[in-house]
Amino acid sequence: MSDTFYTLRFADETLSLIDQRVLPTTVEYFTCTNSSDVEFAIRDMVVRGAPAIGATAAYGVYFSAKESSSLYESSSPEEFEKAFYATNRFLFDARPTAVNLGWAIERMEKAYITLKGKQIEEILSELLSLADFITEEDVAINKAMGSFGSELIPEGATILTHCNTGALATAGWGTALGVIKTAHRADQSIFVYADETRPRLQGARLTAWELKMAGINSALISDSVAATLIRDGKIDLVILGADRVAANGDVCNKIGTFMLSALCKMYHVPFYSAFPVSTIDFSLATGEQIPIEERDAEEVTHIQGVRVAPTGMNVYNPAFDVTPHEHVTALITEKGVLYPPFDTAIAALKP
Amino acid sequence: MSDTFYTLRFADETLSLIDQRVLPTTVEYFTCTNSSDVEFAIRDMVVRGAPAIGATAAYGVYFSAKESSSLYESSSPEEFEKAFYATNRFLFDARPTAVNLGWAIERMEKAYITLKGKQIEEILSELLSLADFITEEDVAINKAMGSFGSELIPEGATILTHCNTGALATAGWGTALGVIKTAHRADQSIFVYADETRPRLQGARLTAWELKMAGINSALISDSVAATLIRDGKIDLVILGADRVAANGDVCNKIGTFMLSALCKMYHVPFYSAFPVSTIDFSLATGEQIPIEERDAEEVTHIQGVRVAPTGMNVYNPAFDVTPHEHVTALITEKGVLYPPFDTAIAALKP
Repeated sequence: MSDTFYTLRFADETLSLIDQRVLPTTVEYFTCTNSSDVEFAIRDMVVRGAPAIGATAAYGVYFSAKESSSLYESSSPEEFEKAFYATNRFLFDARPTAVNLGWAIERMEKAYITLKGKQIEEILSELLSLADFITEEDVAINKAMGSFGSELIPEGATILTHCNTGALATAGWGTALGVIKTAHRADQSIFVYADETRPRLQGARLTAWELKMAGINSALISDSVAATLIRDGKIDLVILGADRVAANGDVCNKIGTFMLSALCKMYHVPFYSAFPVSTIDFSLATGEQIPIEERDAEEVTHIQGVRVAPTGMNVYNPAFDVTPHEHVTALITEKGVLYPPFDTAIAALKP
Repeated sequence: MSDTFYTLRFADETLSLIDQRVLPTTVEYFTCTNSSDVEFAIRDMVVRGAPAIGATAAYGVYFSAKESSSLYESSSPEEFEKAFYATNRFLFDARPTAVNLGWAIERMEKAYITLKGKQIEEILSELLSLADFITEEDVAINKAMGSFGSELIPEGATILTHCNTGALATAGWGTALGVIKTAHRADQSIFVYADETRPRLQGARLTAWELKMAGINSALISDSVAATLIRDGKIDLVILGADRVAANGDVCNKIGTFMLSALCKMYHVPFYSAFPVSTIDFSLATGEQIPIEERDAEEVTHIQGVRVAPTGMNVYNPAFDVTPHEHVTALITEKGVLYPPFDTAIAALKP
């Protein structure tokens, strides 16, 4: 990887995480040497972004097994399992709404079941290998996505992106921002506008920082500036991520995504969403069925702890919106680029 | 007025201004008893909003005349004028880009010229009367706009607004927010969504506060939430202000206005702009000729003094955008509501 930082790294029985609470003003690594450290890191958002949380949790489950390992031989596998599952549950509860957290813990527990009865040293070694694999697999998926997606980016393109979909949101490299970074390797003349992405400012705090670290020419804008750039022909394409994709290609993503898609539709600008196939919810016919999480009013009334709105003001703060597939030019996955009709293209990916 | 606060008030030789630097967390009045106080209040943005600055400056010119009044009789009118014009220039330099600042000072100076030779007591009394008139005239214009505009608001409407166009931006009552307040007097069931209006957050800091003070049911949203509300039929109309209007009806207003107009056009939602006739630039054929002011990067990289983006990140920060007249349903002025074709309707208002 050409990243000059890493989101997470495991070495010498220590998991190091870049501390996303203090970026971009401070670059600091938070170290975890046990499951409690991992639980804290996930709960307190030292680490964020679904794939990054998943990989972090996998190492948490490794720590969990290691911490109970003396029980496995001194008392019994049953005693071990009681402690092991209890600690995993504790990890799971750190952020119950993060899909990848449960997914990674379950994957580690399933591996344990196939190893049951073996020497504890072998079990620990296999669990650590799986945590490493989950991490590397995510990076590999992102690199494949980058390779397919970068083919869509014309030479010297000016690209608009939204929220953070980079190395920080994943185990490394990134989804939509990974595509941009891959394109930049071949063509240093691309230019990126990054939406600041209110209310949580992931664009200002994280994407701007990643763009600078990658040496990509770029500018930060308030979210409502994008509309005039799109109208005035200053944007060649929009590329962003996805939190959940329906079987018909409707894309649920960070609030503000729909606005960009509508402007792109109106002014004939290509609009792409990049995500791993695991983001597709094959059971959902359309995006209309996706419940939109409403988050705390303080995300809007306070910025970095400073109050910016009057006490008691009502707030409507949806975290996501749904972009209809009619506004999407193509979907970028690690299996290739999907074009309309999306329902057929997506059905072909069904496991 | 039913406002429970005031933007500016003159009594007992003292000008009181609501301190917009500390709203909405603190409600404090800043008092001016001389021209230096007024200059500071304008420069340091104790007061903001073009009409509010104009009225404040008028009282500043009154203070200027009063401070030099001893020269008028003891030495000569020429000595008086030297000091008077020098102080007025000092006031003018407080914020050289504010159009209404120069307009108000010029209006006061023209009045002095017609009074030249009279007793200084009479001159001071006439200048104070004119400052009061400038203030009251602005409120009267806003009330007329409110009366015409409120006819466009259906019973129980849900209204979206952007930036601050209320009493705080004017000598009192407000333009677009004045229309909303007039409508609310007749129909308490209206509901208002206020865009926070990045980067300067006038919606969060000022409009939210005015809506609460007026007892209007409302909610604050991040700017990019508006798009889904418009699409989902949750907004009956959008009403906002204008900074400059071209002869064809193109509206230059706070950044984010164009985005709302495009969504309204796409989803057939009425879009209104409210402003005094003095905002129309009859010499401008279209809005394309309006130069867009780019403001300091710090407005985006810092919020209330707290850094939210990495050091050295480029920023593109236009303060305004231009909405084409084709996106506008009607224009609301103190002379009545203008409908397309706007060029004809606007030409009829030409002085």
